[in-house]
Amino acid sequence: MSAVYLDHNATTALDSRVLEAMLPYLREQQGNPTSRHSFGRAARQAVEQAREQVAAAVGAHPTQVVFTSGGTEADNLAIRGIALAQAPSQLAISAIEHPAVSRPAQALQGRGWKLAKVAVNGDGVVDMDSLRDVLRGKTALVSIMAANNETGTIQPLPAIAALAREHGAVVHTDAVQALGKTALDFRALGVQAMSLSAHKINGPQGVGALVYDKRVDIQPVLYGGGQEKGLRSGTENIAAIVGFGVACELAQQQLTVHGTAMGTLRSRLEAGLRRLGATVFGSDAERVPNTSFFAFPDIEGETLVMAMDRKGYAIASGSACSSESTEPSHVLLAMGIAPVFARGAVRVSFGRGNTAEEVEGFLQALEHELSRLKRMAAVAV
Amino acid sequence: MSAVYLDHNATTALDSRVLEAMLPYLREQQGNPTSRHSFGRAARQAVEQAREQVAAAVGAHPTQVVFTSGGTEADNLAIRGIALAQAPSQLAISAIEHPAVSRPAQALQGRGWKLAKVAVNGDGVVDMDSLRDVLRGKTALVSIMAANNETGTIQPLPAIAALAREHGAVVHTDAVQALGKTALDFRALGVQAMSLSAHKINGPQGVGALVYDKRVDIQPVLYGGGQEKGLRSGTENIAAIVGFGVACELAQQQLTVHGTAMGTLRSRLEAGLRRLGATVFGSDAERVPNTSFFAFPDIEGETLVMAMDRKGYAIASGSACSSESTEPSHVLLAMGIAPVFARGAVRVSFGRGNTAEEVEGFLQALEHELSRLKRMAAVAV
Repeated sequence: MSAVYLDHNATTALDSRVLEAMLPYLREQQGNPTSRHSFGRAARQAVEQAREQVAAAVGAHPTQVVFTSGGTEADNLAIRGIALAQAPSQLAISAIEHPAVSRPAQALQGRGWKLAKVAVNGDGVVDMDSLRDVLRGKTALVSIMAANNETGTIQPLPAIAALAREHGAVVHTDAVQALGKTALDFRALGVQAMSLSAHKINGPQGVGALVYDKRVDIQPVLYGGGQEKGLRSGTENIAAIVGFGVACELAQQQLTVHGTAMGTLRSRLEAGLRRLGATVFGSDAERVPNTSFFAFPDIEGETLVMAMDRKGYAIASGSACSSESTEPSHVLLAMGIAPVFARGAVRVSFGRGNTAEEVEGFLQALEHELSRLKRMAAVAV
Repeated sequence: MSAVYLDHNATTALDSRVLEAMLPYLREQQGNPTSRHSFGRAARQAVEQAREQVAAAVGAHPTQVVFTSGGTEADNLAIRGIALAQAPSQLAISAIEHPAVSRPAQALQGRGWKLAKVAVNGDGVVDMDSLRDVLRGKTALVSIMAANNETGTIQPLPAIAALAREHGAVVHTDAVQALGKTALDFRALGVQAMSLSAHKINGPQGVGALVYDKRVDIQPVLYGGGQEKGLRSGTENIAAIVGFGVACELAQQQLTVHGTAMGTLRSRLEAGLRRLGATVFGSDAERVPNTSFFAFPDIEGETLVMAMDRKGYAIASGSACSSESTEPSHVLLAMGIAPVFARGAVRVSFGRGNTAEEVEGFLQALEHELSRLKRMAAVAV
């Protein structure tokens, strides 16, 4: 078992304060929030309090928050829900979106939608000229992530949203990797829909939210009992929603302190990585402070992940969501990185509890593994 | 706050053994099951063990189980997923389905599908002649629930499935209210897809499953990272999935004992109800043993629910999922009950922990409230 967890962009541990807040809802009889009796009313109240906490963390109004089963469902609700409420035209996403955005977008192609991909520069930042080009075609919906899950690159959303909206498009952002790592203000960003997830910010798995401008028409993805104003049917996951609310509150309170701590760890890490000969991707762009995506020449990323796992360090090759694939990262390919080098990419993503000692230990173990792998490669040739 | 919870068809309390099994996954750092490092592999193992437990509870193979965020999502995946993998034709559901089945079915009407409703008799049991009639039109998918959420009526699924499959239809059943209350054997029922939910069997909210025959084509509802063999993208809700597995195991072990206990409570309840002048709906049909749906002449169901809540008893008027509506139960209307009488319907659904003393207390309080409400009605006239 790895002792040191450095894969917080994949999932995080539940904060003990979040668990404490959830436990009464796991231990005692709860009502269904739709029920009229006192158990039901208490559950409803808990859900509505969490809605306020989530809204407050992103500068939105509670009535703008729809709870979902997670970030993927929020992205699907935004992409399919907003598109299908309109006549088919063009849908534009960046070339570096998470599959939770790109796959539902691709699926819409079977329903008369044209899918356009907006290019990014070598640091993984959206190319405004490419966006302008794409927007020449009538575009109903633009979806650009707030921060990339692999590189951590932050997109210039206010400028993107302003340009897209000038062209009449609805703008959505997948902010799953940005929440808790950089300030997120729904109104200031200028977007009309934003996906969030709890388990990336030390909240529970199985819950997320779509924050949306109520003037935008959205079709549900899940139909049924009509919960969440008809936008998301299904019995509310009360304990998880309560935990999400508390996790948002904590993330908001700790944003600056946490960001500084993460940034310090990363600077230390990246100084060491460069000394060992690594290229750090996207490092000239603004990034969320906890993420470092890098490669060493002639070292396969997957091999390095397994070697470091045996040394007790949990890191990722590309994103967890695509780790069943052996293709090089689509994010790096979009940034113009050669496929052979992109295959070497590994990601360290820090989170609460990581320490400077762990970074030092990681760098030492890495140095050892790199020379071992290079020796093995030399023998193999 | 109500002291006695008699609304277990709406949601149940988490079994303490289920919570114990979940706690390690809530307390300690977990990996994303898609991650390759040891944290990820441990999470994957936990998910796969739960998949075996869920499969075993319904006589299915673990590879036939897709985890979802709950019963509603499982129903949507079955209805939309199976329909959209085929050319549009007819879709048949019973007249008493839960909105998680009927609403996605209605939504398909916008996509070229014809929706047929199969009638039920006065006890809420599917009318085989009506099914035969419906099947005269080319029917791609038939969805009939295993047990009704309001009346508890059990449908003759083996006969329904055999007839529908003879006519070339794929057969789905929403078994959310049957699981843990009556024996469910996926193969013996003859259906090709079956929806389950954890929070109705003292498992956690936010998790369910679709059990399916792998020869049936299914399109995903949620697209993304490709989890659950591409049928349900999104990071797995590990603690909830683990809890679902344990809840299934417990439900399976206790099926007979629990069923007998529930049946004893219900007999006692219904003897008392009849003495007080109630009509019990569906009582001549086979029902799951915990559910009693009844009405008194000239007493509004909603009024009775609120009156009993003040006396400390949590019961439901119709189903929680439609309790925001003031329409009489569509289930009772389909059974031919007059709307004015259907408005009087209230449901008691027993669960673990309920006692004979609670039933006696309930009946006494009910008698008191009934005479009070009748006096008030007399004064109002």
